[in-house]
Amino acid sequence: MRKQFACLVAVILSFAITISAQKLMGFTDASATKQIDWEKQFDAQLNAKNLDTWMQFLSSHPHHVGSPQDKANAEYMANLFKSWGYQTEIAEYYVLFPTPKLRLLELLGSKPYKAKLEESTLKEDKTSGQKAEQLPSYNAYSADGDVTAELVFVNRGIPADYEELERMGISVKGKIVIAKYGGSWRGIKPKVAAEHGAIGCIIYSDPEDDGYAQGDVYPEGPFRPKDGAQRGSVMDMPVYPGDPLTPGVGATKDAKRLDRKDATTIMKIPVLPISYEDALPLLQSLGGPVVPAAWRGGLPITYHTGPGTAKVHLKLEFNWDIKPLYNVIAKLPGNELPDEWVIRGNHHDGWVNGAADPLSGMVSELEEARGIAELVKKGYKLKRTLVYCAWDGEEPALLGSTEWAEDHQQELKKKAVFYLNSDGNSRGFIGAGGSHTLETFFNEVANDVKDPQTGVTIKERKYASAMVAGDKAARAKLAGNKNIKLSALGAGSDWSGFLQYLGIASMNIGFGGEGQGGEYHSIYDSYDHFIKFKDPGYQYGMALSKTAGRVMMRMANADVLPFDFNSFQKTVADYVTELKTLLDNTRSETEQENKMIRDKLYDLAKDPKKGFQSPKPKDDVPFLNFSSLENAMVQLKNNAEEFQKQFGNGTSLSADKQKELNEILYKAERSLITEKGLPRRSWYKHQVYAPGYYTGYGVKTLPGIREAIEQRNWKEAQENIEIVSKTMETYNAEIKKAMDILVKKPF
Amino acid sequence: MRKQFACLVAVILSFAITISAQKLMGFTDASATKQIDWEKQFDAQLNAKNLDTWMQFLSSHPHHVGSPQDKANAEYMANLFKSWGYQTEIAEYYVLFPTPKLRLLELLGSKPYKAKLEESTLKEDKTSGQKAEQLPSYNAYSADGDVTAELVFVNRGIPADYEELERMGISVKGKIVIAKYGGSWRGIKPKVAAEHGAIGCIIYSDPEDDGYAQGDVYPEGPFRPKDGAQRGSVMDMPVYPGDPLTPGVGATKDAKRLDRKDATTIMKIPVLPISYEDALPLLQSLGGPVVPAAWRGGLPITYHTGPGTAKVHLKLEFNWDIKPLYNVIAKLPGNELPDEWVIRGNHHDGWVNGAADPLSGMVSELEEARGIAELVKKGYKLKRTLVYCAWDGEEPALLGSTEWAEDHQQELKKKAVFYLNSDGNSRGFIGAGGSHTLETFFNEVANDVKDPQTGVTIKERKYASAMVAGDKAARAKLAGNKNIKLSALGAGSDWSGFLQYLGIASMNIGFGGEGQGGEYHSIYDSYDHFIKFKDPGYQYGMALSKTAGRVMMRMANADVLPFDFNSFQKTVADYVTELKTLLDNTRSETEQENKMIRDKLYDLAKDPKKGFQSPKPKDDVPFLNFSSLENAMVQLKNNAEEFQKQFGNGTSLSADKQKELNEILYKAERSLITEKGLPRRSWYKHQVYAPGYYTGYGVKTLPGIREAIEQRNWKEAQENIEIVSKTMETYNAEIKKAMDILVKKPF
Repeated sequence: MRKQFACLVAVILSFAITISAQKLMGFTDASATKQIDWEKQFDAQLNAKNLDTWMQFLSSHPHHVGSPQDKANAEYMANLFKSWGYQTEIAEYYVLFPTPKLRLLELLGSKPYKAKLEESTLKEDKTSGQKAEQLPSYNAYSADGDVTAELVFVNRGIPADYEELERMGISVKGKIVIAKYGGSWRGIKPKVAAEHGAIGCIIYSDPEDDGYAQGDVYPEGPFRPKDGAQRGSVMDMPVYPGDPLTPGVGATKDAKRLDRKDATTIMKIPVLPISYEDALPLLQSLGGPVVPAAWRGGLPITYHTGPGTAKVHLKLEFNWDIKPLYNVIAKLPGNELPDEWVIRGNHHDGWVNGAADPLSGMVSELEEARGIAELVKKGYKLKRTLVYCAWDGEEPALLGSTEWAEDHQQELKKKAVFYLNSDGNSRGFIGAGGSHTLETFFNEVANDVKDPQTGVTIKERKYASAMVAGDKAARAKLAGNKNIKLSALGAGSDWSGFLQYLGIASMNIGFGGEGQGGEYHSIYDSYDHFIKFKDPGYQYGMALSKTAGRVMMRMANADVLPFDFNSFQKTVADYVTELKTLLDNTRSETEQENKMIRDKLYDLAKDPKKGFQSPKPKDDVPFLNFSSLENAMVQLKNNAEEFQKQFGNGTSLSADKQKELNEILYKAERSLITEKGLPRRSWYKHQVYAPGYYTGYGVKTLPGIREAIEQRNWKEAQENIEIVSKTMETYNAEIKKAMDILVKKPF
Repeated sequence: MRKQFACLVAVILSFAITISAQKLMGFTDASATKQIDWEKQFDAQLNAKNLDTWMQFLSSHPHHVGSPQDKANAEYMANLFKSWGYQTEIAEYYVLFPTPKLRLLELLGSKPYKAKLEESTLKEDKTSGQKAEQLPSYNAYSADGDVTAELVFVNRGIPADYEELERMGISVKGKIVIAKYGGSWRGIKPKVAAEHGAIGCIIYSDPEDDGYAQGDVYPEGPFRPKDGAQRGSVMDMPVYPGDPLTPGVGATKDAKRLDRKDATTIMKIPVLPISYEDALPLLQSLGGPVVPAAWRGGLPITYHTGPGTAKVHLKLEFNWDIKPLYNVIAKLPGNELPDEWVIRGNHHDGWVNGAADPLSGMVSELEEARGIAELVKKGYKLKRTLVYCAWDGEEPALLGSTEWAEDHQQELKKKAVFYLNSDGNSRGFIGAGGSHTLETFFNEVANDVKDPQTGVTIKERKYASAMVAGDKAARAKLAGNKNIKLSALGAGSDWSGFLQYLGIASMNIGFGGEGQGGEYHSIYDSYDHFIKFKDPGYQYGMALSKTAGRVMMRMANADVLPFDFNSFQKTVADYVTELKTLLDNTRSETEQENKMIRDKLYDLAKDPKKGFQSPKPKDDVPFLNFSSLENAMVQLKNNAEEFQKQFGNGTSLSADKQKELNEILYKAERSLITEKGLPRRSWYKHQVYAPGYYTGYGVKTLPGIREAIEQRNWKEAQENIEIVSKTMETYNAEIKKAMDILVKKPF
C-alpha cells in the first residue's frame, strides 16, 4: 500500500513536470505556451525546396550593384514578400559605385610578366563562364592610378608589419607594396601602405590561407584555384560606411553630395587584388632579406621582402558612376504596437554570382518570412511590426542598409526595437554576436532549435565544438557552462547603420565552420559550389530560418522586451578590466623593451651580417584615472542586478505601463551612442562597439579608450574614459527609470 | 687638503680594484692569477689559418666509416697530435656498418614515378661531383627489404601522430609510411611505424623545414636544394648506441659478437631518406583526408594522409660488412695527478665531406690541443692528464666513442674526471649542455671569452639573444639573470658512452644560431658551403678553441675540482617538481578528456561528413608516493648548500687530502648510475639524463620516472621513484664524505 502510494506520487509528479509550461523571457506562462505552440507550427511548414528554388534563380547571373540581375532579384523578392502578404516596397538610393575601366599589372625587368587577372571558366561550374556579365577582379574605391615602382612584400600589411620592416631597414616610400589577404579587413592594407608612403598596393590570396594548403582546390575540392582572386571593397569604412558622397544622410536622388575629391573614405592609392598564380612571378622577383617565419606563405619559393631589381607597373582606371540601389523593405504590421519595429536583414547583392555570400542567408530569411506570414494567415497575432529587408550594395560598402538607416534615422530612433542580421550561412555551428543585453534571450532561442546533423540543440553542439577546439585552459574555463557568449560586433555586414550609427540593439547570427571553401568573392561562389560544399540540402539554411524566426517572433510578441542589463554590465565590466590590463601590460612591456634597448640587447643579439635595426625606445606609459568609469560601473551593476530581480513582474503590468517600460528598454541602447561619436570618425557613435580603425572587421570594445591606448595617445585615452563614464551614467539612468515602473507596479 | 686626500684614496682604491686577482673556482688566488695569465698566452697563439688548412684537407674527400679518406684523416690528425708532443695512438675497432647495395623506390599506378635518389653536382661546389667516393643517400641500419604497398603520410611519425591518424580512421598496418624529417630523432620514425604494423618507411626533407621556405637554396643560399637528401642512422640508439653486435663491450677484433639477427637495435623494416623533389609525386598521389593544419609542409600541394590508388614499391639491399674504425687518442700527461683524466672529444667521420658536421668542431679541437701543447712547451704545468680524442663512426651510431668507452670502462671509471664534447660549430651564440654540477664552473669560463662579432663576453651575448628571442613571460623570468643554464644531455653526439653508460660528468658545447643551412648530412656539407655560410674566417672556430681550451685547462689544473652540487640539487629539485606537475596535469587532462568523451562532446563536435573517430577513454591517473624522493632531495639540498659554503676551504688542504677530496668529487657522478640501468634499456644507466625512448635526441630527465608517467605505466613510475630516491641517497652520501674532508681540514 505504501509502495503503491509512493508510485502514484511519482507518476503525478513526473506528469506535472512534463506538462509544466516552458518559460520564455518576457512572456507570461500562458502566452509562452501559445508562443511555443506557434513556433512548432512554424518549423513544420518550412521547406528546403523553396530555398533551393530561390537560390537557383537569385544566383543564376552575376548580381552586383548596377547589374540587370541585381534589379531583377530585388523585384523577384519584392513579389515574393507581396505574395505572402507583406506591405512591400523597393527603396532606391543612388550611390557612387566605381567599376573597372582598365586594369594592368606587369612585372618589368629581365623576366617580364603580365598578370592574367582572369579567372578560368570551369566546365564543372555552369555560371563560371558568364564572362560578359561578371565584374572582373578589382578592389572597389581604389584610386585611379598609373604607377611604376619597386615592389615590397609587406606580409598582411598591418601596422605591426611595418614596424618589422623598419627593423629590417626596408622602407615602402615611393614603392608599390604587395600584401597577403587576411590578418585584417582588406581596406586596412592600402590605407596603412599609403600612410607609410607607398604609391600602389597589390593584395593577393596566398594558397596558405584559402588555397591548396587548406585542402583540394575547386572544382575537386572547395578551395581557391590558382587563378581565383578575391574582389572586395577597400573604402575606408572604419571612418564611415555607405555612399562616400552622402555621409550621414540617405543617398536619395536629390541628396546633397560631396565632391568626389572631398570624400575621405575613397582610397588614396591604386589597389588591385590578384590570384596566387599572378602573385608568384612578382614575389619570385624580390630580393632583400628573407622574411620572418610568420610571414611565409604557401608558395614554393623563398619569400623575400624585396625590393628586387625589376620594377612593377600598375595602371588602374575606373568608371566613377552613380548607380541605383534596390533595397526590398517588407512589413507585416503589429496589431498592438505597430510603431515598435522588429527588423531583420540580409543583403542580396553579390560580387559575382554570390551563392554563399550572401544568398545562403538571404534565401533562409525569405523562407522565415514566408513561414511567419503563413502563421499569421492561420491566426497568429503579431504584437509588434516585423520589418523584413533585403539589402543591396552591402559588398561595396554596406551601401543599402546604411543609406536606408541614414534616410530613416528619425523614425528608426523612435520605432526600432531591435535589428537582426544574417549573411553567408553554411554547415556547422551557430555563431552569434551582438548587443550584450540580448545574450540571455538568444540562449533561450538556441536551446529550442535542434542541430540538423546531431539532433541535439544548436547550443549543445556549439558547446561541444568550443570544448573540443579549446586548449586545456579554455576547456577548464568553459567546462559545464553552455551559455553562448555573444561576441561584440565590429564591421562586416549590415548592422553598422543600426547599431553603431543609431544605437539600435542588434544581433548577427549564422551557421558555419563545416562548409569550407576558398570561393569567397570570386566567380566560383556559385550554385554549383554551394550545393556541393557549403550546405547540401539546405539543412543549415532551415536551421537558420528556425533560429532567426524564433528571435523575430519572440521579440515581436514578448509582453516585456527580453533585454538583460545584467549580462550587459558584466561584459562591459570585463572590458574595463581588459583595458586596465592592457594599459598595465603596455606599461610593463614598454619598460621591459626600453630597458632592453638601453642595455643594447638588440644590438648584441642581432646577426651583424644582416642589416637589422634595433627598435626605437617608446614613450613611458602613464597611469590613467579609471575611477569615474569604475564608479559608474558599480552603479550600473547594482541597478542591473536589481532590475534583473524585478524583471518578471513586468508581465503583470497594465498595457500602458508595459508600453512605457518597453519603450525605455529598447531605447536604452540609444544612450550608448554620443552625438560627437568617436575621435576622428564621428559617424561611429556607439561607445561600446566599433570596428577597429586599424583592423576593420575586428571589433574594438570601448573603442574610444581602447584605441587611444593602443595608439599611445594617453591624453585622448583619459578624455575617453570620462566620455564612457558619462555614457554609462546616462544608460544607468534609463535602467533606473525602467525599474521605477516595475517597483511601482501595478499602477 | 681634504679634497686632495679624498682623491688620493679614490685613486688607490681604483688601482686596488684593477689589480685585485680574478677568482677562479677551485684555484687559490695565486694559482688563479697564473692560470689566467697562461690563458691569455693561449689565446694569443691561436691561428685561424690552421683551422682552414685542416678543414681543407679533412673535407677534401668523403670520409665516412670505411672510406680511404676516413683512415687518412685519422692518420693525419694522429701525426698532428704527435708533432705537438701528445702520446698518440689510433685505437681501432671493428663494427657492423651497412652500406647500400641496391636502392629502389617507385610509385606504381597510373602516374608512375621512379625516385631519382641522387644529389646534383654543382659547379659552385667543388667536392659535390665526387660521385664514386660518396655514400649515396640512405639510412644506416635499415633492414633489407622488398615491399610493395599503399602509402600513408604520417607527419613526423611520432606516437602522437598515430593517435591522430587513428582518429581519422587511417591505419598503417601492412602499408609503407612517408614521414617528414624533424620532430624527433630520425630513428624513432621507422621504429614507431613498425610498432604500428607498417612494412616500410620513407623519410623526406620537407622544404618547410630546411628548404626554400627557410631561405634561398644552395648554391644561392645555404638551404637544401630540391634534390638534397638527409643521410643518417636509424639504429635504435635509445636502446643502446655503438656496434649493434657488441653491446657493453669494446668491438675489438676478437670480441664476442651477437648474431646479426639477435641485434635488437637494427631496424626491423626498410627505411629510405629522400629529397623533396622525389617526395612530391608520392605525396601528390595520396587520397584520404586532408591532413591537420599542423602537419602541412611547404610543398605546393594539398597534403593528404593517404592512401591513394597507387602503390609504392620500396626495395633495399645492404652490404652488411664489418668495417674498421679509427679513433685518434692523444694524451698529454699530468705532472701531479697523471691518473686523473680530463677528456675531450669530437668526431671526425662525416656522412660525405662533412665540413660543418663534424669538421668545424674537429679543427677547433685540434687548434685547442695545439695551443695547450705550445703552452706546455713554454713551461705550463698540467696537474692532470689531458686526453684528446677524435672519434670515428659517430654518424652511424656513436660507434667510435662508445666502443672505446666500453673497451676502457674499468680504467675510465677510475680515472675520468670529466668529458667535454663538441661537434658542428658555426656563427652565433654559445650553446652548452651537461651535468648540472658543472654549471657554475662553465659560467666562469663563459665570462672570460669574448664574442668575436660584438666584443662582449659570450655569456653576455647569449643572454642578449635569449632575451630578444623570448616572449614577455620568458623575458620577465630571465631579466638580469645572465647565468647560462646548462641544458640536460640526451643523445646526439659522443657523450653517451661517458655520461649515460659510465657516469662521467660531461658537457657538450658549441656555437650556432647564425650559420644557417640545409646541408645537413648531404653532399653539400662541404668546404665551399661552410666557408660561405657557416663560419667565414673561423671566428667562431677560434671562439670554441678559447672556450673549450679554458674548460680543459681549468679542469686539469684546479686545486679542488670545480663541481657545484648546489646547482645540481636545485636543478634536480626542479625536475622532481616537473614530474609531480606532469602527473597532476596528466590526471586532470585525463579526467577532462574522459568526461568529454562520456559527454559525447567529440561525437557532437565532429563533422559527420568526415570519418573521424572520437578518442578512446584512458585509464585514470593514480596519485603516486613521491615522499621518499622528496625526503632524499631535502637531505641533498642541506648537504649541497653546506658543501658549497665549505668549498673554498678545499684549496688549503694538504695534497693528499685534496687528492682524496677530488676523487670523491669527480666520482660522485658515478653514483648517479645504477647497474640495472633503465627499464628495457639497461645500457642507459644514468638516473638523471637519458635520450627519450620515443624522442631520440630529446632528453628525458629522471627518465625512469618520467617515461613511465608518459607511457602511463603507474606501477613502473612508482618503482622508479624508489630507485631514484635510493640513487639520490647514495649520491648524497658521497657529498657528505667530501664535506667531512673539508670540515676536518687541514688534517
